[in-house]
Amino acid sequence: MIELPAPYLLFLGDVTNPLDAKTAMGLRDWRPERCIGQYRLSGCSVDLGLPEMDFSAAVAAGAKSVVIGVAPSGGALKAEWVSALAEATRAGLSVVSGLHRRLNEEPELVKAAAASGQQLIDVRVPPASIPIASGRRRSGKRLLMVGTDCCVGKKYSALALHKALAERGIAATFRATGQTGILIAGGGIPMDAVVSDFLSGAAEALTPDADPHHWDVIEGQGSLFHPAYAAVTLGLIHGSQPDAMVLCHAAGRVVIDEYEDFAVPDLRECIARYEQVAALTQPASSVIGVSLNTQGLSDAAAQQICQETSEACELPCLDPMRHNLDAMLAALT
Amino acid sequence: MIELPAPYLLFLGDVTNPLDAKTAMGLRDWRPERCIGQYRLSGCSVDLGLPEMDFSAAVAAGAKSVVIGVAPSGGALKAEWVSALAEATRAGLSVVSGLHRRLNEEPELVKAAAASGQQLIDVRVPPASIPIASGRRRSGKRLLMVGTDCCVGKKYSALALHKALAERGIAATFRATGQTGILIAGGGIPMDAVVSDFLSGAAEALTPDADPHHWDVIEGQGSLFHPAYAAVTLGLIHGSQPDAMVLCHAAGRVVIDEYEDFAVPDLRECIARYEQVAALTQPASSVIGVSLNTQGLSDAAAQQICQETSEACELPCLDPMRHNLDAMLAALT
Repeated sequence: MIELPAPYLLFLGDVTNPLDAKTAMGLRDWRPERCIGQYRLSGCSVDLGLPEMDFSAAVAAGAKSVVIGVAPSGGALKAEWVSALAEATRAGLSVVSGLHRRLNEEPELVKAAAASGQQLIDVRVPPASIPIASGRRRSGKRLLMVGTDCCVGKKYSALALHKALAERGIAATFRATGQTGILIAGGGIPMDAVVSDFLSGAAEALTPDADPHHWDVIEGQGSLFHPAYAAVTLGLIHGSQPDAMVLCHAAGRVVIDEYEDFAVPDLRECIARYEQVAALTQPASSVIGVSLNTQGLSDAAAQQICQETSEACELPCLDPMRHNLDAMLAALT
Repeated sequence: MIELPAPYLLFLGDVTNPLDAKTAMGLRDWRPERCIGQYRLSGCSVDLGLPEMDFSAAVAAGAKSVVIGVAPSGGALKAEWVSALAEATRAGLSVVSGLHRRLNEEPELVKAAAASGQQLIDVRVPPASIPIASGRRRSGKRLLMVGTDCCVGKKYSALALHKALAERGIAATFRATGQTGILIAGGGIPMDAVVSDFLSGAAEALTPDADPHHWDVIEGQGSLFHPAYAAVTLGLIHGSQPDAMVLCHAAGRVVIDEYEDFAVPDLRECIARYEQVAALTQPASSVIGVSLNTQGLSDAAAQQICQETSEACELPCLDPMRHNLDAMLAALT
């Protein structure tokens, strides 16, 4: 199991799109006690609202790691970022990354970390020896987040549902499938980094046999309607064999983020398609509710759109960051 | 994209079972112009009918690579083979392998290749720097093999269709997606070894912009109906954006090979599902025919099952290893 030295300084690079900083935001929101500050290069316009710190100040404040909290498309690590992170190791911080590009492939960083005795930790490196999927049904129950797009709230929905189940005394485990989820959970498998032949096998390994009444609450990945990532989504569905799915959507999103030629289908079509593909390995799988990200809407507007969506889809619909989850949990218990 | 230095000397080791030399035979049959000779260690009883050459003679005849055309039992490279291949590099040949065991894991070979400046090319290792899929439509036309299952004849169907197009003077390129196909094509991307986030991007890179009338004929992978490999299939479909697809099936196969709990759906359902998922990145995509592997059937039985399948699916149906391809090509020209 990966163990990350805490607390963290969150590194935001020079990003300008808040969607690129979902890792940092997830850490701030779900593990605030571990996040003592933010570090931004010039040009960065994303602000987490954490104290601004340079590396020395962070070390003085007790930080043990600098965590790369941004996930640019493709996972590339810019030269300026590498230099800044090398400086962080010299100041006394380990570096934690969830990017595709491995810290250990950056010679400048490897050299600086070795000289300063700091760790370079890539949480996106999947475990060795993942088996090919067997297709065998497993004991226990599984709830999987599925999405209309990336960045619609699948991880937050899973975390909120897991928390709500636990609060009600129902045995449940949050299963992380992406780098941020792994940082929050302290374990998991980074599905999008798994070699494609082993994708469904990884999802099977992530959600093993369990007590018949136990729920694995599984963070989703991508979207069946995404031209780049639908394969990741499908492999996760087939391997996790979900008894139940929650469709996650960002209110008002009408096209796939950064892929404007690709429309988000009607939610009822999304539900039908997810149930269709899940049936291959779990014939009884069904979508049991819609999780709507209503960020930026008034409470009244959020309430209204959830109600309209609930009526259109004939399913409970709520925003897990605003609303009580009882209506959705009722389908699970 | 992987590119193999041609022409080849085919390395047969010391194998005695012709079944272990299927790769070499495929190369000889499909790309005779690239195979200038064979190299056999003492004890080898398999004969491809190619000129016998030692490494120096092959280099003198123009060979650029020695290709391991046999599968050693157990997958390991014997010490005598490694020594012979090291000698090949010293003679001026690169070494190409499609085996699981990587050439770059053999210290003697690595040392010899480095000293002589020759390449060690493992075709199961995908190229570095594959981009994330853009979803952008590209010029040129694409024909993709899709299957009811693995091992139903997708590679041979693609090779036969490519050959038939070329014979009719239609510009076409065979695009390989697996190790044997890559050896035959002299290049390609091993899709099942690509990290899943990059799967559709790899398929886009494999089939770039081309002349408007040019056809890429793309070897398929896996099956949408396979509990372990459907994600590979989906990523390949979305990235390749096929104008046309050929459904490949092995006559008489009713369950997924080695997954007996998973039935092969009715072929009409398979066709509908493939057209449904391909529509995401290529709305006009359609299945234009069924390629039936009728190995083991009499000519009359093969003819009959193709005719019945054609009537049921309302599409041309033929076995490309037995029948004329005109009916299928008509949909492409």
